Amino acid sequence: MKILGGSNSYYIAKQLSDLLNIKYIPVETRKFPDGEIYVRIDGEVSKEDIIVVQSLAKHPNDSLVELIFICRTLKELNASRIYAFIPYFAYARQDTRFKQGEAVSLDIVANLLEWSGIDEIITIDFHLHRRKPEEIFKIPIHNLSAMRKLSEYILKNYRFSNLILVGPDEESEQWVKTFAKYFDTPYIILEKTRLGDENVIIKSEEELHEANEAIVIDDIVSTGGTLRETAIFLRNKGIKKLYAVVTHALLAPASEYNLSYYNEIISTDSIVNPYAKVKVAEIFTDFIRRRL
Amino acid sequence: MKILGGSNSYYIAKQLSDLLNIKYIPVETRKFPDGEIYVRIDGEVSKEDIIVVQSLAKHPNDSLVELIFICRTLKELNASRIYAFIPYFAYARQDTRFKQGEAVSLDIVANLLEWSGIDEIITIDFHLHRRKPEEIFKIPIHNLSAMRKLSEYILKNYRFSNLILVGPDEESEQWVKTFAKYFDTPYIILEKTRLGDENVIIKSEEELHEANEAIVIDDIVSTGGTLRETAIFLRNKGIKKLYAVVTHALLAPASEYNLSYYNEIISTDSIVNPYAKVKVAEIFTDFIRRRL
Amino acid sequence: MKILGGSNSYYIAKQLSDLLNIKYIPVETRKFPDGEIYVRIDGEVSKEDIIVVQSLAKHPNDSLVELIFICRTLKELNASRIYAFIPYFAYARQDTRFKQGEAVSLDIVANLLEWSGIDEIITIDFHLHRRKPEEIFKIPIHNLSAMRKLSEYILKNYRFSNLILVGPDEESEQWVKTFAKYFDTPYIILEKTRLGDENVIIKSEEELHEANEAIVIDDIVSTGGTLRETAIFLRNKGIKKLYAVVTHALLAPASEYNLSYYNEIISTDSIVNPYAKVKVAEIFTDFIRRRL
Amino acid sequence: MKILGGSNSYYIAKQLSDLLNIKYIPVETRKFPDGEIYVRIDGEVSKEDIIVVQSLAKHPNDSLVELIFICRTLKELNASRIYAFIPYFAYARQDTRFKQGEAVSLDIVANLLEWSGIDEIITIDFHLHRRKPEEIFKIPIHNLSAMRKLSEYILKNYRFSNLILVGPDEESEQWVKTFAKYFDTPYIILEKTRLGDENVIIKSEEELHEANEAIVIDDIVSTGGTLRETAIFLRNKGIKKLYAVVTHALLAPASEYNLSYYNEIISTDSIVNPYAKVKVAEIFTDFIRRRL
Repeated sequence: MKILGGSNSYYIAKQLSDLLNIKYIPVETRKFPDGEIYVRIDGEVSKEDIIVVQSLAKHPNDSLVELIFICRTLKELNASRIYAFIPYFAYARQDTRFKQGEAVSLDIVANLLEWSGIDEIITIDFHLHRRKPEEIFKIPIHNLSAMRKLSEYILKNYRFSNLILVGPDEESEQWVKTFAKYFDTPYIILEKTRLGDENVIIKSEEELHEANEAIVIDDIVSTGGTLRETAIFLRNKGIKKLYAVVTHALLAPASEYNLSYYNEIISTDSIVNPYAKVKVAEIFTDFIRRRL
Repeated sequence: MKILGGSNSYYIAKQLSDLLNIKYIPVETRKFPDGEIYVRIDGEVSKEDIIVVQSLAKHPNDSLVELIFICRTLKELNASRIYAFIPYFAYARQDTRFKQGEAVSLDIVANLLEWSGIDEIITIDFHLHRRKPEEIFKIPIHNLSAMRKLSEYILKNYRFSNLILVGPDEESEQWVKTFAKYFDTPYIILEKTRLGDENVIIKSEEELHEANEAIVIDDIVSTGGTLRETAIFLRNKGIKKLYAVVTHALLAPASEYNLSYYNEIISTDSIVNPYAKVKVAEIFTDFIRRRL
Repeated sequence: MKILGGSNSYYIAKQLSDLLNIKYIPVETRKFPDGEIYVRIDGEVSKEDIIVVQSLAKHPNDSLVELIFICRTLKELNASRIYAFIPYFAYARQDTRFKQGEAVSLDIVANLLEWSGIDEIITIDFHLHRRKPEEIFKIPIHNLSAMRKLSEYILKNYRFSNLILVGPDEESEQWVKTFAKYFDTPYIILEKTRLGDENVIIKSEEELHEANEAIVIDDIVSTGGTLRETAIFLRNKGIKKLYAVVTHALLAPASEYNLSYYNEIISTDSIVNPYAKVKVAEIFTDFIRRRL
Repeated sequence: MKILGGSNSYYIAKQLSDLLNIKYIPVETRKFPDGEIYVRIDGEVSKEDIIVVQSLAKHPNDSLVELIFICRTLKELNASRIYAFIPYFAYARQDTRFKQGEAVSLDIVANLLEWSGIDEIITIDFHLHRRKPEEIFKIPIHNLSAMRKLSEYILKNYRFSNLILVGPDEESEQWVKTFAKYFDTPYIILEKTRLGDENVIIKSEEELHEANEAIVIDDIVSTGGTLRETAIFLRNKGIKKLYAVVTHALLAPASEYNLSYYNEIISTDSIVNPYAKVKVAEIFTDFIRRRL
């Protein structure tokens, strides 16, 4: 077994090489002035099982094409089994045809990855709520969660007097529920109405418990519009300290302003970001060890 | 038969719709703040033959993924035969494994396009010199040339007293030869030695004819390094007026300075650029008419 | 007098050098892997009046910093008077403080350009409707219009049976009025209500004349949302053929789909785009000749 | 005194607000589809001294224009003194005119920042070796160093048997010397010859001490070409474990492959990167406390 990483996730591959004590193979990647990318696998892979690590973040199409180039080349070089560890999996929102004629991007990307030679996929907090991963992929897929490690980080580093856990919308319930298992605290799920790409309204039918602090939990922060509206809602209810916990800190432009409503942001390093407190390499390592 | 275009080549698709008198179907394309793209085909395609137009230029991975999304969706919507007109075909340089472990990008991209459901490919002045298109693709591929239209444009719009046609290197001979057919003028091929990604040396063993004007012909201008060195070489030989003729004006940063050694640049509109004098839609139309 | 162009507008500078018969000085521009830019003026400028051409389009901050680097360096190299020809002037929308704390970008950019050493600015169809250019700049500024050349192009190349000229909103009236002078045709101005960055509603109090064709006139097309809604409104009124005439074709992503509601788009080459029919170099040349 | 941060450095501003116990003012920043940026200062600044934090990294021109927009607006809103904390200062390489006609970018950027209303600049490990900061700026400038905190991090977290400290070239000596103060270990400075933008040769006249581990120290890693050649040189001398310590991890494409020659990379968070172990907010806080 050997490990290598694409240009989004070298540092994760290197940590895994240390944690799992398996050989790290450098991949030379470049971008030419015309935007084409170059990929070279700098090590022996023939007859080896290979773990490839690549988050599909920031420039998802560049990352995806690079991952395909790596996997196809591994197969040509006679690698045995390819395990793709994709900490952040892009294109999960377009999992169905909402309007006639739309590309169902998620299915196409899933099929592309299967075609590229990947035998098994491991990902973290996959943004799915209408469909199950197994319905989308023909190859085995393992959807790990960062919620346990994130809750452990919080429990170790913060003290609360009267805490509430909050999911900003129905979709977030699966993450909030997992996160809440490690807390002795109630959680509530708010109701979100979407008014376009960036605007949302947040409300709640439930009576809010009198709380001093709230942790808002979600899988992804992109523009941060949902988290901002949630913060405004909670501040209006008299909550003083706000924490945002998200697995994937995509941090699109404008997000930082929206996040300024929070006292602290806690995230993983699935994507390079300044709030990374939990290492996805450790989540993956736990999974591998359980499996062996 | 209907026609549609990706975000790089709408204008070509629309011209073709007029020239060939076939229905144009708009494609809605967007880019989300996180870099993901959205594709929607806004018209009936079931049981129709479809021409899809998309140059793989500027951001080749975005363009490629968009083309794949379009073609896979066309197939899901029961389109019949898909003809992909790809005026500029990217990734042609990496047509072999120069160093151990390299991705042979061209083969992977070719296979990807076949996998996406394309039945036939039409392209223009494909940058191949070691291999033939038929060796790379399993589906039919038609490699048209802009050289005739480019030469017609020059013959119609310029007068020369003592002209020479020049190819900057061995690879360019195929284009120079085609271009020269329409001229009553000799041509020479120079010798290029590459010293890295951007630096080249140009020389010639042949005695240069005493000429006042030179037209330098190539398929692609990317950084323009080769064209600049060729211009310096020709200026040193006493040639006064220099014209550059290229099919594909990629114009990477720095290229404009390198092209300032030329009096004029003449190109096609395979990629949006300020030197477009020949419409690739007309070249494609001629091909379709010959075929019917 | 000599002329040079920044990386957005080399081709315009070169055309002007021919049209005005003044010497062209190449500018070497590059972008390093870390995103920094490099500028070198490759010719004698001491004691010369200089025309600098640079549109502030596509990547407005890169274009602006490059223009500042060029002008400051010209002054250090003892150039005399600097005339900046800025075919497309960015940041014109933010000409006031709509909300407390906002940067009034237009004023800051104007002051920056003055500070950079520019003595006089010439631009085309400056997107201003609340303020006059002279209120913003302390240096002389000349706001030329492409509307005459655009109307001449239309009159020469198209025939209409029953035409109406249309401005999509109040702001466009200044351009429609100028354009309409050369036509023997009525014009109407529609009413636009903005519902966010991209969504607008178009309506009209006036009775629409029964027309077969409409030319919609505006200064800029960015996302094309306004033009799309205008087209839908006009189609609903029974108009068959739609033409869009815009000076500046910014063509942000998604614009091409929105423009697909039009039969044809006619624009200038102030920004590189596939619909350029009118050369801004000719508009500038007319201005210079009138002035001499 | 209040603090705010530009879009590159929000997280640093927020840490400083906690460390120094001064009020944090959010700045709303956005990028429009046409590439223009928007800036709004969301809080009272009149008659207040303000610390503005912004690294000029990743997209240096966007970052620079944003910083100018912020500072000019602060002055318009009657802020008192502006302290700009610029953890990473771009454009330091072009500190002189190497070739006739070049823009001396550093001087222009320095003058721009003075013009924008900044009263005092604080930066970290400014990449200067030919000139002193005081020769470039008319306003006070404080050049702090991360080398002490970086050495403390290393001393606390690693054990070495036979260590050598290495500077890859003459320019690096100032950083290596500072770093070495905290170690009881010799250091050597290698000799670098540059062969173009990306290629360098590393050698040494000195006899290398027999060492098992080497820490290579530099201020910036951009493409990583220098660090790679240094690693190859050191591996050839028999050194087993290699550590790279750099203040500013710019990490241009291709850098990650070049860094794969190292066992570990240790950096600061002056730019968001996966190797950040030292917080620049703490370095700045120490400076402020010494000063009060």
